Amino acid sequence: MSLDDAATKPHERMQAALADDLAAVGDLIRARMASQHAPRIPEVTAHLVEAGGKRVRPMLTLAAARLCGYDGDAHQKLAATVEFIHTATLLHDDVVDESQKRRGRPTANLLWDNKSSVLVGDYLFARSFQLMVETGNLRVLNILSNAAATIAEGEVLQLTAAMNLATTEEIYLQVIRGKTAALFEAACEVGGVISGQDERVVTALATYGDGLGVAFQMADDLLDWGGAGGEIGKNTGDDFRERKLTLPVIRAVERADADERAFWKRTIEKGDQQDGDLEQAMDLLRRHGTLEETRDVANGHVANAKAALSILPEHPLREMMIDLADYVVARLN
Amino acid sequence: MSLDDAATKPHERMQAALADDLAAVGDLIRARMASQHAPRIPEVTAHLVEAGGKRVRPMLTLAAARLCGYDGDAHQKLAATVEFIHTATLLHDDVVDESQKRRGRPTANLLWDNKSSVLVGDYLFARSFQLMVETGNLRVLNILSNAAATIAEGEVLQLTAAMNLATTEEIYLQVIRGKTAALFEAACEVGGVISGQDERVVTALATYGDGLGVAFQMADDLLDWGGAGGEIGKNTGDDFRERKLTLPVIRAVERADADERAFWKRTIEKGDQQDGDLEQAMDLLRRHGTLEETRDVANGHVANAKAALSILPEHPLREMMIDLADYVVARLN
Repeated sequence: MSLDDAATKPHERMQAALADDLAAVGDLIRARMASQHAPRIPEVTAHLVEAGGKRVRPMLTLAAARLCGYDGDAHQKLAATVEFIHTATLLHDDVVDESQKRRGRPTANLLWDNKSSVLVGDYLFARSFQLMVETGNLRVLNILSNAAATIAEGEVLQLTAAMNLATTEEIYLQVIRGKTAALFEAACEVGGVISGQDERVVTALATYGDGLGVAFQMADDLLDWGGAGGEIGKNTGDDFRERKLTLPVIRAVERADADERAFWKRTIEKGDQQDGDLEQAMDLLRRHGTLEETRDVANGHVANAKAALSILPEHPLREMMIDLADYVVARLN
Repeated sequence: MSLDDAATKPHERMQAALADDLAAVGDLIRARMASQHAPRIPEVTAHLVEAGGKRVRPMLTLAAARLCGYDGDAHQKLAATVEFIHTATLLHDDVVDESQKRRGRPTANLLWDNKSSVLVGDYLFARSFQLMVETGNLRVLNILSNAAATIAEGEVLQLTAAMNLATTEEIYLQVIRGKTAALFEAACEVGGVISGQDERVVTALATYGDGLGVAFQMADDLLDWGGAGGEIGKNTGDDFRERKLTLPVIRAVERADADERAFWKRTIEKGDQQDGDLEQAMDLLRRHGTLEETRDVANGHVANAKAALSILPEHPLREMMIDLADYVVARLN
């Protein structure tokens, strides 16, 4: 690894390594979000697509395929599919969460309206299915339609799990798989499938994607509590205020004594939050060690993700994927 | 046709003829709307699915397949697919239209919330894709994913065409194809494809479905203006109040003199509606003959639909499909 390489972030190095593929995917996305009669569709889509997300998901598909020696162009269609599914999910999420900002810009539901976000999201879902059907690969269709169902189920689960102290770790894992890991997993897996790899390789890629996605979401949830050290800053406490149960809280609730239980009941279930409650919640998480535990669990998923890649051939993209896994938890360590 | 047959409606006769298939489709729907951890999903879905829609769309798939001599069971999966797509669309429509009632019952967005309607709709879309992928028939996947895109595009188009006097007949046709005819068409077409029919038969079934769907939606739009005679009743005027442009209005606007144009501009574009405006609008439609014309156009689509079926073999289901086409405009004649 040269000094230059070390200075850039792994997803930036992937962007450079996959520049041609990514340009083709960008062209595909622009072509497929067009609509002759309904200009609202490309307007809303472009607002989100051009807002400069990191395109991690389509890059995973491209990287997995290239790493497996694929030299066709169906992986570009799959990468665009994955990005459309992701964009559709974001549009609907912002309606559900009544969000005002996404990637530092006003959300589509705010700029246009909820109706446009719902319907344009539906359009992008349909477009994503058209794109994947064009590959003519039934296994790929199976993987991606299953992922779409897991995503939607996870979102509904999150809706009903919020504010509910009975939420278990199992449910939490299902929620974050729906929210993040299912699409990461499918993105990697279809890259292997389209390359005609055997079961072992395909499973390894899926395992990598799942581990990466779970660790990524856990890290995000942990950072909302100020990381493993638990330091309150301007980016902390959103989940507490929105009464969302993430791993540090679920474990602390599990071990709560009567007084602590009453505290969680009041703040999370009843939503009666007062000054100092965030500090007290943080204090409980620290006292029960659940912030550090969450970091450890996330690190475990990263270790699994990296280990899975060991059966793949040596390749610069494989190293970048390994570095990417480290990177998602580097913010915590 | 026996006296008994003549007394029942064509879709009721189809229901009887396809009773076994429909029971299997009902079982499939119940099995696939389940969710182990998110009971909200079957609750919301059941509310709509069990509310007693006529299931015309899945019946068209079943009828088309049986009429073509199909004796497998993939047509049942496709019928369930079509019903899931339809149900997902209804859930999202009710959010977009802020509807309070559907099939005589409170809508899901009212009973639960918009969030649940959006996310459960997404789940049903994903489930519908899983189901169609299970058939392993790429042509079917192509047809249904195209239909899903046409539906979503039509919905966005309707959103931007509402309140806009520049809406053309072409745009209106695209809106009603998205709203109704695209799924009718796909429902019939996949019945032929799954039966392994040749191009001629598949195209005939698609043409029938399109004509049926277009006529059905035009009839609906015309009844909102009191039918070809234009009589104001308790079920008329919703589209006028919601400032939706349907065929009778589009043609009347096209032929409007300066005063009439000012009237449409005020009532539809600006939404400034006063007592007596509905009567005056109706008067303009009658004067320009656009209500009768709309009936004639709808009848033309029915004639096309029926003519298309002539190349299919004689079969009781073919007769019921022909009767069904007559039935959708019988309300107008």
